[in-house]
Amino acid sequence: MADGRLVIGTKMYSSWSLRGWLAVHLAKLDVEEVLIPLAGGATSSIKDATPAGLVPYLEHQGAKVWESLAILEYCAEFAPHLWPADRRARAQARSIAAEMHAGFRALRMAMPMTILNTRDGSTAPPEALADIARIDAIWRDALAASGGPFLFGAEFGGADVMYAPVVCRFLTWGPEVSAEARAYMAAVRAHPLMQRWYDEAAREPAEWKLAKYEP
Amino acid sequence: MADGRLVIGTKMYSSWSLRGWLAVHLAKLDVEEVLIPLAGGATSSIKDATPAGLVPYLEHQGAKVWESLAILEYCAEFAPHLWPADRRARAQARSIAAEMHAGFRALRMAMPMTILNTRDGSTAPPEALADIARIDAIWRDALAASGGPFLFGAEFGGADVMYAPVVCRFLTWGPEVSAEARAYMAAVRAHPLMQRWYDEAAREPAEWKLAKYEP
Repeated sequence: MADGRLVIGTKMYSSWSLRGWLAVHLAKLDVEEVLIPLAGGATSSIKDATPAGLVPYLEHQGAKVWESLAILEYCAEFAPHLWPADRRARAQARSIAAEMHAGFRALRMAMPMTILNTRDGSTAPPEALADIARIDAIWRDALAASGGPFLFGAEFGGADVMYAPVVCRFLTWGPEVSAEARAYMAAVRAHPLMQRWYDEAAREPAEWKLAKYEP
Repeated sequence: MADGRLVIGTKMYSSWSLRGWLAVHLAKLDVEEVLIPLAGGATSSIKDATPAGLVPYLEHQGAKVWESLAILEYCAEFAPHLWPADRRARAQARSIAAEMHAGFRALRMAMPMTILNTRDGSTAPPEALADIARIDAIWRDALAASGGPFLFGAEFGGADVMYAPVVCRFLTWGPEVSAEARAYMAAVRAHPLMQRWYDEAAREPAEWKLAKYEP
Protein backbone atom coordinates (compact mmCIF):
# COMPACT_ATOMS: atom_id res chain seq x y z
CA MET A 1 0.00 0.00 0.00
CA ALA A 2 1.29 3.43 -0.98
CA ASP A 3 2.17 6.16 1.52
CA GLY A 4 -0.34 8.55 -0.02
CA ARG A 5 -1.45 10.04 -3.33
CA LEU A 6 -0.56 12.74 -5.78
CA VAL A 7 -3.47 14.43 -7.52
CA ILE A 8 -2.59 15.89 -10.92
CA GLY A 9 -4.33 17.15 -14.06
CA THR A 10 -4.10 16.18 -17.71
CA LYS A 11 -0.46 15.55 -18.67
CA MET A 12 -0.86 17.25 -22.05
CA TYR A 13 -1.69 20.58 -20.43
CA SER A 14 -1.14 20.74 -16.66
CA SER A 15 2.15 22.56 -16.26
CA TRP A 16 2.00 22.86 -12.49
CA SER A 17 1.15 19.15 -12.19
CA LEU A 18 4.34 18.32 -14.07
CA ARG A 19 6.34 20.04 -11.35
CA GLY A 20 4.71 18.17 -8.49
CA TRP A 21 5.00 14.88 -10.37
CA LEU A 22 8.70 15.42 -11.09
CA ALA A 23 9.44 16.35 -7.47
CA VAL A 24 7.63 13.31 -6.09
CA HIS A 25 9.38 10.96 -8.51
CA LEU A 26 12.84 12.49 -7.99
CA ALA A 27 12.38 12.07 -4.23
CA LYS A 28 11.04 8.54 -4.80
CA LEU A 29 7.98 9.05 -2.59
CA ASP A 30 5.71 6.03 -2.77
CA VAL A 31 2.38 7.63 -3.72
CA GLU A 32 -0.51 6.62 -5.91
CA GLU A 33 -1.12 8.86 -8.93
CA VAL A 34 -4.67 10.23 -9.20
CA LEU A 35 -5.25 12.01 -12.50
CA ILE A 36 -8.28 14.27 -12.87
CA PRO A 37 -8.75 15.44 -16.47
CA LEU A 38 -8.87 19.23 -16.75
CA ALA A 39 -12.24 20.51 -17.90
CA GLY A 40 -10.90 23.83 -19.23
CA GLY A 41 -11.35 26.48 -16.56
CA ALA A 42 -12.19 25.67 -12.94
CA THR A 43 -12.62 21.90 -12.73
CA SER A 44 -15.20 21.01 -10.08
CA SER A 45 -13.79 17.54 -9.39
CA ILE A 46 -10.40 19.10 -8.65
CA LYS A 47 -12.03 21.69 -6.43
CA ASP A 48 -13.73 18.92 -4.47
CA ALA A 49 -10.58 16.79 -4.16
CA THR A 50 -8.02 19.39 -3.02
CA PRO A 51 -7.73 22.03 -0.25
CA ALA A 52 -7.03 25.00 -2.53
CA GLY A 53 -8.98 23.69 -5.52
CA LEU A 54 -5.75 23.27 -7.44
CA VAL A 55 -3.44 20.58 -8.78
CA PRO A 56 -0.90 19.32 -7.97
CA TYR A 57 -1.93 18.15 -4.51
CA LEU A 58 0.05 15.67 -2.43
CA GLU A 59 -1.02 13.60 0.55
CA HIS A 60 1.90 11.72 2.09
CA GLN A 61 2.20 10.07 5.49
CA GLY A 62 -0.48 12.34 6.94
CA ALA A 63 0.87 15.54 5.39
CA LYS A 64 -1.29 17.54 2.96
CA VAL A 65 0.73 19.66 0.56
CA TRP A 66 -0.38 21.89 -2.29
CA GLU A 67 1.34 24.44 -4.56
CA SER A 68 4.15 23.01 -6.66
CA LEU A 69 6.88 24.90 -4.80
CA ALA A 70 5.67 23.65 -1.40
CA ILE A 71 5.52 20.10 -2.76
CA LEU A 72 9.08 20.54 -3.99
CA GLU A 73 10.25 21.75 -0.57
CA TYR A 74 8.42 18.84 1.06
CA CYS A 75 10.12 16.37 -1.28
CA ALA A 76 13.50 18.03 -0.68
CA GLU A 77 13.20 17.17 3.00
CA PHE A 78 13.33 13.50 1.93
CA ALA A 79 15.78 14.14 -0.92
CA PRO A 80 18.07 17.05 0.05
CA HIS A 81 20.01 16.67 -3.20
CA LEU A 82 17.09 18.40 -4.94
CA TRP A 83 18.73 21.66 -3.84
CA PRO A 84 22.43 22.45 -4.39
CA ALA A 85 24.72 21.53 -1.49
CA ASP A 86 26.45 24.93 -1.55
CA ARG A 87 24.61 27.57 0.49
CA ARG A 88 25.05 30.33 -2.10
CA ALA A 89 24.02 28.14 -5.03
CA ARG A 90 21.07 26.92 -2.99
CA ALA A 91 20.02 30.53 -2.38
CA GLN A 92 20.20 31.20 -6.11
CA ALA A 93 18.24 28.04 -6.90
CA ARG A 94 15.49 28.99 -4.47
CA SER A 95 15.43 32.57 -5.78
CA ILE A 96 14.87 31.51 -9.38
CA ALA A 97 12.39 28.83 -8.27
CA ALA A 98 10.36 31.45 -6.40
CA GLU A 99 10.65 33.92 -9.29
CA MET A 100 9.16 31.24 -11.55
CA HIS A 101 6.49 30.32 -9.01
CA ALA A 102 5.11 33.86 -8.74
CA GLY A 103 6.05 35.34 -12.09
CA PHE A 104 6.18 35.18 -15.86
CA ARG A 105 2.44 35.55 -16.10
CA ALA A 106 2.60 37.09 -19.58
CA LEU A 107 4.55 34.11 -20.88
CA ARG A 108 2.16 31.67 -19.25
CA MET A 109 -0.86 33.40 -20.79
CA ALA A 110 0.70 33.70 -24.25
CA MET A 111 2.23 30.23 -24.46
CA PRO A 112 0.18 27.64 -22.56
CA MET A 113 1.63 24.18 -22.14
CA THR A 114 0.29 21.82 -24.79
CA ILE A 115 3.13 19.38 -25.14
CA LEU A 116 1.99 17.24 -28.04
CA ASN A 117 1.68 20.24 -30.35
CA THR A 118 3.93 22.60 -32.27
CA ARG A 119 2.54 26.13 -32.26
CA ASP A 120 3.50 29.50 -33.70
CA GLY A 121 4.87 31.77 -30.98
CA SER A 122 5.80 34.65 -33.28
CA THR A 123 2.85 36.80 -32.22
CA ALA A 124 3.67 36.80 -28.49
CA PRO A 125 3.19 40.23 -26.89
CA PRO A 126 6.17 42.29 -25.68
CA GLU A 127 5.53 41.36 -22.03
CA ALA A 128 5.88 37.67 -22.90
CA LEU A 129 9.07 38.38 -24.85
CA ALA A 130 10.45 40.20 -21.80
CA ASP A 131 9.63 37.15 -19.67
CA ILE A 132 11.40 34.90 -22.18
CA ALA A 133 14.49 37.12 -22.15
CA ARG A 134 14.56 37.09 -18.36
CA ILE A 135 14.22 33.28 -18.24
CA ASP A 136 16.99 32.92 -20.82
CA ALA A 137 19.24 35.13 -18.65
CA ILE A 138 18.37 33.14 -15.51
CA TRP A 139 19.26 29.89 -17.27
CA ARG A 140 22.50 31.26 -18.75
CA ASP A 141 23.62 32.59 -15.35
CA ALA A 142 23.02 29.27 -13.61
CA LEU A 143 24.46 27.13 -16.41
CA ALA A 144 27.61 29.27 -16.68
CA ALA A 145 28.25 28.89 -12.96
CA SER A 146 27.43 25.18 -12.73
CA GLY A 147 28.75 23.95 -16.07
CA GLY A 148 25.38 22.29 -16.81
CA PRO A 149 23.82 20.32 -18.34
CA PHE A 150 21.17 21.08 -15.71
CA LEU A 151 20.82 24.46 -13.98
CA PHE A 152 22.94 23.50 -10.98
CA GLY A 153 25.13 20.80 -12.48
CA ALA A 154 25.01 17.15 -13.38
CA GLU A 155 21.72 16.27 -11.69
CA PHE A 156 18.16 17.31 -12.55
CA GLY A 157 17.22 19.25 -9.39
CA GLY A 158 14.60 21.48 -7.78
CA ALA A 159 15.22 24.50 -9.99
CA ASP A 160 14.91 22.28 -13.07
CA VAL A 161 11.62 20.95 -11.67
CA MET A 162 10.26 24.49 -11.49
CA TYR A 163 11.38 25.43 -15.02
CA ALA A 164 10.48 22.11 -16.71
CA PRO A 165 7.03 23.35 -17.83
CA VAL A 166 8.70 26.42 -19.38
CA VAL A 167 10.91 24.06 -21.36
CA CYS A 168 7.74 22.34 -22.58
CA ARG A 169 6.23 25.70 -23.53
CA PHE A 170 9.36 26.74 -25.43
CA LEU A 171 9.54 23.39 -27.26
CA THR A 172 5.94 23.86 -28.40
CA TRP A 173 5.94 27.59 -29.19
CA GLY A 174 9.52 27.97 -30.43
CA PRO A 175 10.51 31.43 -29.19
CA GLU A 176 14.02 32.65 -30.04
CA VAL A 177 16.40 31.80 -27.21
CA SER A 178 20.15 31.51 -26.78
CA ALA A 179 22.22 28.49 -27.78
CA GLU A 180 22.79 27.80 -24.06
CA ALA A 181 19.03 27.78 -23.48
CA ARG A 182 18.48 25.42 -26.39
CA ALA A 183 21.10 22.99 -25.05
CA TYR A 184 19.47 23.14 -21.62
CA MET A 185 16.02 22.49 -23.11
CA ALA A 186 17.39 19.44 -24.92
CA ALA A 187 18.92 18.12 -21.68
CA VAL A 188 15.63 18.55 -19.81
CA ARG A 189 13.60 16.95 -22.62
CA ALA A 190 15.93 13.93 -22.66
CA HIS A 191 15.64 13.22 -18.93
CA PRO A 192 13.94 9.83 -18.38
CA LEU A 193 11.17 11.32 -16.24
CA MET A 194 10.38 13.94 -18.88
CA GLN A 195 10.40 11.25 -21.53
CA ARG A 196 7.94 9.25 -19.43
CA TRP A 197 5.64 12.28 -18.91
CA TYR A 198 5.56 12.96 -22.67
CA ASP A 199 4.89 9.29 -23.43
CA GLU A 200 2.05 9.15 -20.91
CA ALA A 201 0.62 12.41 -22.28
CA ALA A 202 0.65 10.90 -25.77
CA ARG A 203 -1.41 7.97 -24.51
CA GLU A 204 -4.11 10.17 -22.93
CA PRO A 205 -7.54 9.67 -24.52
CA ALA A 206 -8.55 12.00 -27.34
CA GLU A 207 -11.63 13.09 -25.40
CA TRP A 208 -9.38 14.80 -22.84
CA LYS A 209 -8.20 17.24 -25.50
CA LEU A 210 -9.36 20.81 -24.93
CA ALA A 211 -10.07 22.97 -27.97
CA LYS A 212 -8.44 26.04 -26.43
CA TYR A 213 -5.04 24.33 -26.27
CA GLU A 214 -5.18 22.62 -29.67
CA PRO A 215 -4.15 24.21 -33.01
CA MET B 1 30.80 45.64 9.66
CA ALA B 2 27.56 43.93 8.64
CA ASP B 3 27.39 40.54 6.88
CA GLY B 4 25.55 42.04 3.92
CA ARG B 5 22.60 44.21 2.97
CA LEU B 6 18.87 44.04 2.49
CA VAL B 7 17.46 46.24 -0.26
CA ILE B 8 13.83 47.23 0.28
CA GLY B 9 11.33 49.79 -1.00
CA THR B 10 9.22 52.42 0.71
CA LYS B 11 7.82 51.06 3.98
CA MET B 12 4.44 52.74 3.43
CA TYR B 13 3.81 50.73 0.28
CA SER B 14 6.23 47.88 -0.37
CA SER B 15 4.39 44.78 0.74
CA TRP B 16 6.97 42.30 -0.52
CA SER B 17 9.74 44.28 1.20
CA LEU B 18 7.94 43.88 4.51
CA ARG B 19 8.21 40.12 4.17
CA GLY B 20 11.93 40.12 3.47
CA TRP B 21 12.54 42.60 6.26
CA LEU B 22 10.55 40.52 8.77
CA ALA B 23 12.37 37.30 7.80
CA VAL B 24 15.79 38.88 8.10
CA HIS B 25 14.97 40.42 11.51
CA LEU B 26 13.35 37.25 12.87
CA ALA B 27 16.47 35.29 11.87
CA LYS B 28 18.65 38.05 13.32
CA LEU B 29 20.87 38.30 10.24
CA ASP B 30 23.31 41.18 10.60
CA VAL B 31 22.66 43.14 7.41
CA GLU B 32 22.58 46.82 6.50
CA GLU B 33 19.20 48.15 5.38
CA VAL B 34 19.23 49.92 2.01
CA LEU B 35 15.92 51.63 1.27
CA ILE B 36 15.18 52.75 -2.29
CA PRO B 37 12.00 54.85 -2.48
CA LEU B 38 9.49 53.42 -4.94
CA ALA B 39 8.90 55.71 -7.92
CA GLY B 40 5.47 54.25 -8.76
CA GLY B 41 5.90 51.62 -11.45
CA ALA B 42 9.26 50.16 -12.48
CA THR B 43 11.86 51.97 -10.38
CA SER B 44 15.12 52.25 -12.34
CA SER B 45 17.34 52.48 -9.27
CA ILE B 46 15.86 49.19 -8.00
CA LYS B 47 16.36 47.62 -11.40
CA ASP B 48 20.02 48.64 -11.32
CA ALA B 49 20.59 47.42 -7.76
CA THR B 50 19.02 43.95 -7.87
CA PRO B 51 19.29 40.80 -10.07
CA ALA B 52 15.58 40.51 -10.91
CA GLY B 53 14.84 44.23 -10.72
CA LEU B 54 12.73 43.66 -7.63
CA VAL B 55 12.72 44.29 -3.90
CA PRO B 56 13.32 42.75 -1.44
CA TYR B 57 16.85 41.67 -2.30
CA LEU B 58 19.29 40.20 0.20
CA GLU B 59 23.05 39.86 0.01
CA HIS B 60 24.44 37.88 2.95
CA GLN B 61 27.84 36.23 3.36
CA GLY B 62 28.28 35.94 -0.38
CA ALA B 63 24.76 34.69 -1.08
CA LYS B 64 22.42 36.71 -3.32
CA VAL B 65 18.74 36.08 -2.64
CA TRP B 66 15.64 37.61 -4.18
CA GLU B 67 11.90 36.88 -4.00
CA SER B 68 10.41 37.14 -0.52
CA LEU B 69 9.75 33.41 -0.23
CA ALA B 70 13.34 32.51 -1.16
CA ILE B 71 14.61 35.06 1.37
CA LEU B 72 12.37 33.44 3.97
CA GLU B 73 13.72 29.96 3.16
CA TYR B 74 17.27 31.34 3.30
CA CYS B 75 16.60 32.88 6.71
CA ALA B 76 14.97 29.67 7.94
CA GLU B 77 18.25 27.85 7.36
CA PHE B 78 19.73 30.09 10.07
CA ALA B 79 16.52 30.12 12.14
CA PRO B 80 14.72 26.77 11.68
CA HIS B 81 12.02 27.84 14.15
CA LEU B 82 10.57 30.02 11.37
CA TRP B 83 8.85 26.84 10.15
CA PRO B 84 6.82 24.54 12.45
CA ALA B 85 8.80 21.65 13.97
CA ASP B 86 6.10 19.10 13.04
CA ARG B 87 6.49 17.77 9.48
CA ARG B 88 2.77 17.94 8.70
CA ALA B 89 2.33 21.45 10.10
CA ARG B 90 5.47 22.51 8.23
CA ALA B 91 3.98 21.16 4.98
CA GLN B 92 0.81 23.17 5.64
CA ALA B 93 2.81 26.31 6.46
CA ARG B 94 4.81 26.03 3.25
CA SER B 95 1.65 25.31 1.23
CA ILE B 96 -0.11 28.44 2.40
CA ALA B 97 3.11 30.48 2.07
CA ALA B 98 3.46 29.36 -1.56
CA GLU B 99 -0.25 29.96 -2.21
CA MET B 100 0.25 33.53 -0.99
CA HIS B 101 3.46 33.97 -2.96
CA ALA B 102 1.88 33.08 -6.31
CA GLY B 103 -1.73 33.99 -5.74
CA PHE B 104 -4.40 36.43 -4.60
CA ARG B 105 -3.66 38.72 -7.50
CA ALA B 106 -7.17 40.21 -7.51
CA LEU B 107 -6.83 41.16 -3.84
CA ARG B 108 -3.41 42.67 -4.40
CA MET B 109 -4.67 44.76 -7.32
CA ALA B 110 -7.83 45.89 -5.52
CA MET B 111 -6.31 46.63 -2.12
CA PRO B 112 -2.70 47.84 -2.40
CA MET B 113 -0.69 48.17 0.78
CA THR B 114 -0.74 51.77 2.00
CA ILE B 115 -0.32 51.32 5.70
CA LEU B 116 -0.75 54.84 6.98
CA ASN B 117 -4.18 55.19 5.41
CA THR B 118 -7.72 53.99 5.99
CA ARG B 119 -9.48 53.27 2.71
CA ASP B 120 -12.91 52.12 1.56
CA GLY B 121 -12.77 48.50 0.41
CA SER B 122 -16.50 48.13 -0.19
CA THR B 123 -16.18 48.33 -3.98
CA ALA B 124 -13.75 45.43 -4.31
CA PRO B 125 -14.57 43.16 -7.28
CA PRO B 126 -15.90 39.61 -6.77
CA GLU B 127 -12.50 38.07 -7.54
CA ALA B 128 -10.94 40.06 -4.69
CA LEU B 129 -13.76 39.02 -2.35
CA ALA B 130 -13.12 35.38 -3.30
CA ASP B 131 -9.43 35.87 -2.44
CA ILE B 132 -10.38 37.39 0.91
CA ALA B 133 -12.70 34.46 1.70
CA ARG B 134 -9.96 31.97 0.83
CA ILE B 135 -7.41 33.81 3.01
CA ASP B 136 -9.89 33.90 5.89
CA ALA B 137 -10.39 30.12 5.53
CA ILE B 138 -6.62 29.52 5.41
CA TRP B 139 -6.14 31.54 8.59
CA ARG B 140 -9.03 29.86 10.41
CA ASP B 141 -7.76 26.39 9.52
CA ALA B 142 -4.26 27.11 10.78
CA LEU B 143 -5.40 28.97 13.91
CA ALA B 144 -7.88 26.24 14.86
CA ALA B 145 -5.15 23.60 14.65
CA SER B 146 -2.43 25.62 16.38
CA GLY B 147 -4.47 27.50 18.96
CA GLY B 148 -2.94 30.80 17.80
CA PRO B 149 -2.35 33.64 18.33
CA PHE B 150 -0.10 33.25 15.27
CA LEU B 151 -0.85 30.85 12.40
CA PHE B 152 1.25 28.03 13.80
CA GLY B 153 1.19 28.82 17.49
CA ALA B 154 2.84 31.09 19.98
CA GLU B 155 5.62 32.44 17.75
CA PHE B 156 5.44 34.75 14.74
CA GLY B 157 6.80 32.42 12.02
CA GLY B 158 7.37 32.05 8.31
CA ALA B 159 3.71 31.74 7.34
CA ASP B 160 2.96 34.91 9.31
CA VAL B 161 5.80 36.64 7.45
CA MET B 162 4.16 35.79 4.13
CA TYR B 163 0.69 36.96 5.23
CA ALA B 164 1.79 40.09 7.15
CA PRO B 165 1.27 42.40 4.14
CA VAL B 166 -2.26 41.00 3.75
CA VAL B 167 -2.90 41.95 7.36
CA CYS B 168 -1.74 45.48 6.50
CA ARG B 169 -4.05 45.54 3.47
CA PHE B 170 -7.02 44.37 5.53
CA LEU B 171 -6.31 46.91 8.29
CA THR B 172 -6.34 49.68 5.67
CA TRP B 173 -9.22 48.53 3.47
CA GLY B 174 -11.45 46.95 6.11
CA PRO B 175 -13.00 43.99 4.29
CA GLU B 176 -15.44 41.82 6.23
CA VAL B 177 -13.61 38.90 7.79
CA SER B 178 -14.27 36.40 10.57
CA ALA B 179 -13.72 37.10 14.27
CA GLU B 180 -10.81 34.67 14.19
CA ALA B 181 -9.23 36.63 11.35
CA ARG B 182 -9.69 39.90 13.22
CA ALA B 183 -8.01 38.48 16.33
CA TYR B 184 -5.14 37.21 14.19
CA MET B 185 -4.75 40.61 12.51
CA ALA B 186 -4.57 42.27 15.92
CA ALA B 187 -1.88 39.84 17.06
CA VAL B 188 0.20 40.46 13.94
CA ARG B 189 -0.21 44.24 14.21
CA ALA B 190 0.92 44.17 17.85
CA HIS B 191 4.14 42.24 17.16
CA PRO B 192 7.16 44.45 17.99
CA LEU B 193 8.64 44.13 14.49
CA MET B 194 5.35 45.16 12.90
CA GLN B 195 5.11 48.06 15.30
CA ARG B 196 8.62 49.12 14.28
CA TRP B 197 7.81 48.87 10.55
CA TYR B 198 4.70 51.04 10.99
CA ASP B 199 6.67 53.57 13.07
CA GLU B 200 9.41 53.78 10.48
CA ALA B 201 6.83 54.11 7.70
CA ALA B 202 5.25 57.02 9.57
CA ARG B 203 8.63 58.77 9.64
CA GLU B 204 9.21 58.46 5.88
CA PRO B 205 9.41 61.85 4.13
CA ALA B 206 6.24 63.26 2.62
CA GLU B 207 7.90 63.44 -0.80
CA TRP B 208 8.00 59.64 -0.93
CA LYS B 209 4.21 59.53 -0.99
CA LEU B 210 2.74 58.30 -4.27
CA ALA B 211 -0.56 59.75 -5.41
CA LYS B 212 -1.87 56.40 -6.61
CA TYR B 213 -1.73 54.94 -3.11
CA GLU B 214 -3.06 57.98 -1.25
CA PRO B 215 -6.77 58.75 -0.70
